[in-house]
Amino acid sequence: MNFSFEVLKTDATGARLGRLRTPRGEIKTPVFMPVGTQATVKSLRNEALEELGAQIILGNTYHLYLRPGHELIGKLGGLHKFMSWERAILTDSGGYQVFSLSELRKITDEGVRFRSHLDGAEHLLTPEKAAEIQLALGSDIAMVLDECIATPAPREIAEAALKRTTAWAKRARAFFLQCASRNGDLRQWQFGIVQGATFPDLRRESAQQLVEIDFPGYAVGGLAVGEPHGVTCEMTAEAARLLPEGKPRYLMGVGRPEQIADYVARGIDMMDCVLPTRAARHACIYTSEGKVLIKNARYAQDQRPLDPACSCSVCARYTRAYLRHLFAAGELTAAILATHHNIHFYLDLLRQIREAIEFGNLAKFSSEVQARYAAGPA
Amino acid sequence: MNFSFEVLKTDATGARLGRLRTPRGEIKTPVFMPVGTQATVKSLRNEALEELGAQIILGNTYHLYLRPGHELIGKLGGLHKFMSWERAILTDSGGYQVFSLSELRKITDEGVRFRSHLDGAEHLLTPEKAAEIQLALGSDIAMVLDECIATPAPREIAEAALKRTTAWAKRARAFFLQCASRNGDLRQWQFGIVQGATFPDLRRESAQQLVEIDFPGYAVGGLAVGEPHGVTCEMTAEAARLLPEGKPRYLMGVGRPEQIADYVARGIDMMDCVLPTRAARHACIYTSEGKVLIKNARYAQDQRPLDPACSCSVCARYTRAYLRHLFAAGELTAAILATHHNIHFYLDLLRQIREAIEFGNLAKFSSEVQARYAAGPA
Repeated sequence: MNFSFEVLKTDATGARLGRLRTPRGEIKTPVFMPVGTQATVKSLRNEALEELGAQIILGNTYHLYLRPGHELIGKLGGLHKFMSWERAILTDSGGYQVFSLSELRKITDEGVRFRSHLDGAEHLLTPEKAAEIQLALGSDIAMVLDECIATPAPREIAEAALKRTTAWAKRARAFFLQCASRNGDLRQWQFGIVQGATFPDLRRESAQQLVEIDFPGYAVGGLAVGEPHGVTCEMTAEAARLLPEGKPRYLMGVGRPEQIADYVARGIDMMDCVLPTRAARHACIYTSEGKVLIKNARYAQDQRPLDPACSCSVCARYTRAYLRHLFAAGELTAAILATHHNIHFYLDLLRQIREAIEFGNLAKFSSEVQARYAAGPA
Repeated sequence: MNFSFEVLKTDATGARLGRLRTPRGEIKTPVFMPVGTQATVKSLRNEALEELGAQIILGNTYHLYLRPGHELIGKLGGLHKFMSWERAILTDSGGYQVFSLSELRKITDEGVRFRSHLDGAEHLLTPEKAAEIQLALGSDIAMVLDECIATPAPREIAEAALKRTTAWAKRARAFFLQCASRNGDLRQWQFGIVQGATFPDLRRESAQQLVEIDFPGYAVGGLAVGEPHGVTCEMTAEAARLLPEGKPRYLMGVGRPEQIADYVARGIDMMDCVLPTRAARHACIYTSEGKVLIKNARYAQDQRPLDPACSCSVCARYTRAYLRHLFAAGELTAAILATHHNIHFYLDLLRQIREAIEFGNLAKFSSEVQARYAAGPA
């Protein structure tokens, strides 16, 4: 296994500076993973992601399983080769998308039966199947199947989901290790996922049970799905404090720029979110001064870059007036340029956060970002 | 004036190898101009166009006049600065789009009154106004307003349109020269447009009348709008043989890959067409072996590049299987990659045509391309 994780420094807040080594390169943590749902980060060529310095991206198992299919991708040499991306890829388990996108879900202890949102065909996703799909995709990091529930949830629902999540995690781990012993070096790490909704004791219980199973890394799932930010932070902290110091921690599906440092301060090393890419396609630009809604008439003659403090290739060349025009005219180029900038913003934010940890001033940095985002752009 | 045009060689077919000098760079002719309707070549960053070696692109006056408006673009320093494109731009007159896109057109000798396809607002486009808009845009080459008619047209309709086109060309030229004498060096060339529908004698008459007005270059308009390819070629030849040897000739709105060399053989130096960009967005890929309809199931596991003979950055990295998946999944990245390749294909085709003229084998080259396109891809 060419994988390793090392915590290089922990600051007073609990934030960690780390190094995640994968067979496809080294990743500085805390890291933000751009979302490449269908084997592409929407509206970016891989060349752009490389220019932006993305070291790892996320792929969605649910989407790739349904189209073009993990068997086809496996046959063509795996996801990296299929999409021509040589750096690291993390795939989720497909669970969250089954719960949020598909129809007629039926959950049993066996797994989750659902109908495809594409053609209505019926499928069964089990812990073993989710692992099998991700092995075929050949991602560097795979996630176990967990049961995702709507929150706020009654305690008994949360307890049942936790129990099932642990049981599924055990099965997923056993299946994965069996494949590994059969096939030798799998070049893949499998992470467990802590559930427990918004109940601190359930979060702790889930974390403990997963640690007992023994994964090389752990995610915290089922958060940032509508609950207050303070609750997200509290639940993250409850889980993180029981997770092994020396293993990476991944908070799934977060977050807003002004929230990222809060999660890092709870000991989170990895994050992913559709926000920078989705917001970009809706003309919402993240800048060092807050959000710029670029379709606003106030930018019609604005010859400044999207973010005057930004060093990305879009800000070096194009104006707000031009971007506003491209969005108003419905041009694809608008999404290309805005996505490029927003991904740069997120990756740069994480660079600044790593630097702040290094120099011991993450709390100050975080409150500055929050103040700028509260005030909005000039 | 930093403009000049020089015919370097004429081959046996009548094809010309030339050099068009503009204040924004030198253009080797015959040249294909990618279409950047709304101040962007759809789904390409300017960086991509530069990588592809595009020396001149086309902008659409009708679209830019309506949105964001020529006054705004003029105020922000002109179209080049607005869209951050330092190489040459040719703008059309807006006439063709008024006739094809807008509602409630009413043509009088004064000009054409129409309703915007965007908001229904009424506008009047006159020969003077079309020149004024293009001066505000600051394009390197501007076109005069002409009357575009549907073909096949009765002779009396074609005669009336020809007469009006000539009258409008005179007014446009007078207005342009008046502005030039008032403002000094305008850094813009204005081209006349030959009309005459599918009547050889009307094409000749139109060409003669425009030559008398004296433009630095001439376009042939109103062709490739549904008539047989042979007729397009015949009309082009009729017009071209009366146009001055030493001035550039631009055939508007053409053409298909297998037709380009035919136009060049009729003495055409410049062309533009939405085909490579529009076809790309509809998953139609131009290759050295013919058209590849990449959504076809036969490409699902095809690990070859879009065109094995192509040297573009898309073919160097991505497979047909991947492109097929991106199109099937409705990803914007599909349009980005396909457009990049198709524009490369057209620009490379023109490079090959220039080389064929140089070596005196254009006819052979042309029949090879036609044979490949008739046969289709392997």
